[in-house]
Amino acid sequence: MIKAAILGYGTVGSGVYNVIKSNSYLVNERAGQEIEIKYVLDLRDFPGDPVESVLTHDFEDIINDDEVKIVIEVMGGINPAFDFTMRCLEEGKNVCTSNKELVAEHGLELMHTARENDVNYFFEASCGGGIPIIRALNDCLTADDIDEITGILNGTTNYILTEMTENGASFSKVLKEAQKMGYAERDPSADIDAHDPARKIAILSSIVFGSSVDYKDIYTEGIRQITAEDIKYATTLGYAIKLLAEAKRTEDGVRAYVAPFLVEPSHPLYAINGVMNAVYVHGNMLGDAVFTGAGAGSLPTASAVVADVIDAARHDGKRAYCGWKHDEKLVLASNDSVKHKYLVRISTEDEGKANRVFSPDGFLDTISVGELEEEIAFITPELSEEDFETKAKAFGKVISRIRFY
Amino acid sequence: MIKAAILGYGTVGSGVYNVIKSNSYLVNERAGQEIEIKYVLDLRDFPGDPVESVLTHDFEDIINDDEVKIVIEVMGGINPAFDFTMRCLEEGKNVCTSNKELVAEHGLELMHTARENDVNYFFEASCGGGIPIIRALNDCLTADDIDEITGILNGTTNYILTEMTENGASFSKVLKEAQKMGYAERDPSADIDAHDPARKIAILSSIVFGSSVDYKDIYTEGIRQITAEDIKYATTLGYAIKLLAEAKRTEDGVRAYVAPFLVEPSHPLYAINGVMNAVYVHGNMLGDAVFTGAGAGSLPTASAVVADVIDAARHDGKRAYCGWKHDEKLVLASNDSVKHKYLVRISTEDEGKANRVFSPDGFLDTISVGELEEEIAFITPELSEEDFETKAKAFGKVISRIRFY
Repeated sequence: MIKAAILGYGTVGSGVYNVIKSNSYLVNERAGQEIEIKYVLDLRDFPGDPVESVLTHDFEDIINDDEVKIVIEVMGGINPAFDFTMRCLEEGKNVCTSNKELVAEHGLELMHTARENDVNYFFEASCGGGIPIIRALNDCLTADDIDEITGILNGTTNYILTEMTENGASFSKVLKEAQKMGYAERDPSADIDAHDPARKIAILSSIVFGSSVDYKDIYTEGIRQITAEDIKYATTLGYAIKLLAEAKRTEDGVRAYVAPFLVEPSHPLYAINGVMNAVYVHGNMLGDAVFTGAGAGSLPTASAVVADVIDAARHDGKRAYCGWKHDEKLVLASNDSVKHKYLVRISTEDEGKANRVFSPDGFLDTISVGELEEEIAFITPELSEEDFETKAKAFGKVISRIRFY
Repeated sequence: MIKAAILGYGTVGSGVYNVIKSNSYLVNERAGQEIEIKYVLDLRDFPGDPVESVLTHDFEDIINDDEVKIVIEVMGGINPAFDFTMRCLEEGKNVCTSNKELVAEHGLELMHTARENDVNYFFEASCGGGIPIIRALNDCLTADDIDEITGILNGTTNYILTEMTENGASFSKVLKEAQKMGYAERDPSADIDAHDPARKIAILSSIVFGSSVDYKDIYTEGIRQITAEDIKYATTLGYAIKLLAEAKRTEDGVRAYVAPFLVEPSHPLYAINGVMNAVYVHGNMLGDAVFTGAGAGSLPTASAVVADVIDAARHDGKRAYCGWKHDEKLVLASNDSVKHKYLVRISTEDEGKANRVFSPDGFLDTISVGELEEEIAFITPELSEEDFETKAKAFGKVISRIRFY
């Protein structure tokens, strides 16, 4: 028997309790021993709830109980999650978390402390919800040198883009509906400004490339500016607009992007719709692999957390392997010289100028959408970020621009 | 340092040697110790090849060398692979294999012997090539009760069906081309008669449901009878014909199928084309998850074998968890009462009779393909296997029939 405590009885915390209770036979069998939830920490009371008998308001009950070997931190946010996690690790307790903010911000430090105290800090649920991508990287694709990882890592924005594509609705209308249905937060900024997928790709690339990637170093562009008109052009081209989070090893070093891209139908991430997430991985032996699943939600996220709990029980007294192991920070290469084609929308009357600026040696391919009479779009040749910015500045009147993947 | 031997220096064996040498730094770091290939067993000589210095023609060199702790069996076939594996396990050597015939035929017995001798028998590469599906089931999706697993598990047949769909070519023409390109064996029966995916779904469902599924008990229908005309109807409907291997827990027990199915565009396996494989899994907490990757090929398969070697090194002296653990055989439920819609092709002149037999209370929806003037197809209501067989017998003149998934 191994005893555990859950910090936070919110959406994920109640899911974790539910998974451990509902699947107890399987969970215990796979953990190799019975897992007992001895405490649930929350400031609130839950009269009549099954957790009532194990509920505590005081973290000290947990930290001072030597029987508790696994702490499940599903509070979210940096404070007090950071202090609680640190103290647990220092006391020789394993910690499993779904807290991507905390892992992206303090993961290295926490893993260092875990190492020093010969316990494990697991965070499968911090990226891709129920998709077992972290364990895939640490324990499954171990024979490969992974040189690229690209994902749809945020369910809210993928849902919004899918709805905009399928119904032709505006960003703000779909966002409002998503908030009503609980798919988007009241303050949706972490999702729609793409801080959330930036944190997740930072975590994943730290595992893939070995050293800490700071999410604040990653070029991050959200979907707030994507309009129903942008979607119309994408659909006319037969492409989909997807918010991709990518990290890639190049000759110049590791490069990372989080931005909306035009994705062609043959790409494996093209067909990932709604709240689903997917992660594409390229290995030097394996070639292409894609992992798809529910990127959020109480039970899928809890499923990933409980898989960590089982792994913590399996590794009781032993350290599990984690690719994110070097204490130095990974300095990302600049994106300035990265080349993409761009879809650029302009006013019809500026077509001549666009040709002069963007294609001095020939004519640009243009795309028109029937209902949008006063504008056209064109596709640039492959241009570096720097080149595109210079030309766009010289041109002056771009309505919108989206990169092709 | 841990020493290993490779049995068989063919396509997979040379891939394994290559992966361990090319990625040695990563492989050793992830294994926690250096992995040295001490022997390569093959009947042939390879003058000038890097394996020349470690080549042996005599299995006794390996079995009698106590330093060898990991044996990589990539010979294929039942004999002498079975005897060699058994003797290695009895001598306390871990065995990693890509040999699906052997695992499907004698897996339970071999795992039993591994257990008794406190070593591991790993077979990640036996299903889905480079897709880490076995480790996903044993080590990643551990919090879930998996109730369904469905895959495109054979690259050759998926390549043939994709080519037939994209080029309108006949089965025999595409098969010949596939043989020329090395995508299909000279004797293609294991692939096109679907014994290969039947073995793989038997292995996967043994892990998912805990007890041994005998692949010979699984209803198995290959793609030999699929014609260019069948593909035309599928394309007209907007569907794809895919050879699916499925195992599912139902009220009556576990049911399994290997057969070509009409798959709708919104299904995650619809877009898996060419030699790619994919596995769909449904868990009671996780919901849907899909794992996609190269289903065959020297390096992707070797990547999976080497991941097993790394896991064997990590588990030196310890037993790894495997869901396939019960010694009894799993008796599959009959498929007789399973209901599907069917696409049925008939001669145009038999339409009246078809309506009388298949739809006594109304008219069947029919589909015509321009070029095929003398025939039509109709879609039946949902019918059990038994019902369909009875009606098809009464009708007498079905050109072809394919189940809808």
